[in-house]
Amino acid sequence: MTTNVTLVPAYAAPAANAPLERTTVPRRPVGEHDVLIEIKYAGICHSDIHQARDGWGEGIYPMVPGHEIAGVVAEVGPGVTRYTVGDRVGVGCFVDSCRECANCLEGLEQYCTGGSTGTYNALDKNGEPTYGGYSTHVVVDENYTLRIPEGIALDEAAPLLCAGITLYSPLAHWNAGPGKKVAIVGLGGLGHMGVKIAHALGAEVTVLSQSLRKREDGLKLGADHYHATSDPKTFTELAGSFDLIISTVSAPIDFAAYLGLLRTGGALVNVGAPEEPISLNLFPLMMGRKTLAGSAIGGIAETQEMLDFCAEHGLGAEIELIRADQINEAYERVLASDVRYRFVIDTSTI
Amino acid sequence: MTTNVTLVPAYAAPAANAPLERTTVPRRPVGEHDVLIEIKYAGICHSDIHQARDGWGEGIYPMVPGHEIAGVVAEVGPGVTRYTVGDRVGVGCFVDSCRECANCLEGLEQYCTGGSTGTYNALDKNGEPTYGGYSTHVVVDENYTLRIPEGIALDEAAPLLCAGITLYSPLAHWNAGPGKKVAIVGLGGLGHMGVKIAHALGAEVTVLSQSLRKREDGLKLGADHYHATSDPKTFTELAGSFDLIISTVSAPIDFAAYLGLLRTGGALVNVGAPEEPISLNLFPLMMGRKTLAGSAIGGIAETQEMLDFCAEHGLGAEIELIRADQINEAYERVLASDVRYRFVIDTSTI
Repeated sequence: MTTNVTLVPAYAAPAANAPLERTTVPRRPVGEHDVLIEIKYAGICHSDIHQARDGWGEGIYPMVPGHEIAGVVAEVGPGVTRYTVGDRVGVGCFVDSCRECANCLEGLEQYCTGGSTGTYNALDKNGEPTYGGYSTHVVVDENYTLRIPEGIALDEAAPLLCAGITLYSPLAHWNAGPGKKVAIVGLGGLGHMGVKIAHALGAEVTVLSQSLRKREDGLKLGADHYHATSDPKTFTELAGSFDLIISTVSAPIDFAAYLGLLRTGGALVNVGAPEEPISLNLFPLMMGRKTLAGSAIGGIAETQEMLDFCAEHGLGAEIELIRADQINEAYERVLASDVRYRFVIDTSTI
Repeated sequence: MTTNVTLVPAYAAPAANAPLERTTVPRRPVGEHDVLIEIKYAGICHSDIHQARDGWGEGIYPMVPGHEIAGVVAEVGPGVTRYTVGDRVGVGCFVDSCRECANCLEGLEQYCTGGSTGTYNALDKNGEPTYGGYSTHVVVDENYTLRIPEGIALDEAAPLLCAGITLYSPLAHWNAGPGKKVAIVGLGGLGHMGVKIAHALGAEVTVLSQSLRKREDGLKLGADHYHATSDPKTFTELAGSFDLIISTVSAPIDFAAYLGLLRTGGALVNVGAPEEPISLNLFPLMMGRKTLAGSAIGGIAETQEMLDFCAEHGLGAEIELIRADQINEAYERVLASDVRYRFVIDTSTI
């Protein structure tokens, strides 16, 4: 690599709804505070599929998805102080933010009022499109780069950068821990990390999944209990039980029914937002001072805290490693919920 | 009064949608832990009208509304330790609860899992209907009776038992205080107490009302700012400003628009529930870790805390004192939002 713009191999969607294919994309020169990362692994997040297929509109093509990036530092800019060549690092959902707003100053860069810069499908401060982790290399400001501790294998670490922090942040914020009963709705890429992290935080963990199909897995991951939401008894037997419920599903769920599972003062936190507005009766919120909340990934400091926590507790994602030429097939399997629990691309195959 | 069931004068709705009229209703003998209260004043809460007209169904008739009761102890049962004859006391929305569930034990009797016993339109533990404060006397367990400190006139104290605690509880729970920006949506019976209490707690208070019609009042009550929600500029200029918004209106509001007024981590708390389910897009909750919550009145200990706080800060409700024979007319005026800010019945006119 030189300090000029470089073309690097990547898998990209050339247009909305077109299959991903091998191509090259430009990476900027390594600037003063940049690190060049040799990407080793990139997780496939459900939102990659959504964006690649322009589900939210205004997609920028060609689009290289991937915001669960794990790799090794290959080069550092002259002003870089946090990393040296060879360090194990990760990149999550954003690669920059305004650094000046109240949220950025509080370490809540994900809520940057000017809008943080997405790792892909975004324009950076120079107006150049960003390209994500389905690629061999990426250049990122050191302040938006995370350290992956030795305790986690890089392939199992990649999904922590989105799925891990998406669950860790609300679990920590709403005080999941000893003496607390926590339910995780949905046992997919997000949910399985929720079970692992909530268990490691010391909470009593219940999985609420459509069926009991993944029950054995759930218990192995750390759940104390496992219930099928297709069984109406679940909603009567568990009424008023939970301090915290985190819903990871994007399909519309019956929010009133889940609010009924909360104790007085409990919180139902949504991290897998349904696209359509939900219909909500407000009485269940009033009759028990309950809260319905939302949470999106985490800030840089909290993401580092999550990685350190996971390393300390030996937590990585459960992954299925794939070659780059399997990405399109993997997308279909994600949509069919046929993955336990995260596809990770071995980027050496790009 | 004797220790036998006694008939006392009251104003009651004889049936759903029938005007209230003078009648008599039975009061139980003064039991071991009961106090007989000579009611001096009773506030008219919007929910009185709703229930008198069977808006929630299953109304028990004849119905004597009134759960904002202020009076003086006229007799005490042999086991009563908290009150003596002549004490200034109040009764709020409930007169009993199971006393055994986790909520009751935590002082959250309003969320009693068995259901607290409403001050009217309910059945007590003996299956007898309860009758509310539009009456000359009521018999209440001393543990569900509040002390009204000397600092508040009894007529201005009555509305505190529902309107006051309904606002105090969420303001206290969500930490309204110095350095916090609080918005109160709607300047009616509930809202005007919200402004007074939030101001006394030290918060910077904004009223969000449909129009600027009551602006002068709002500022006099303690608001620092006053904005009309009919003006779209309100929602752009105040975007991201508030730590806490308490909505006191029962008409459906555009919740997404109000969520946009919250800072990151802010809470929108609903205390005036719309009857119809609302439609809610969950993205605004996620993009800023915001919460939508509900809150209903307060527990006994917290209600006492509120009364003590109001006395200390010289806060009573702004009232319009009426005779009992004006109740039906007052109901129509409440429905037309033509009251500043609470009707209180002088029960000596019953």
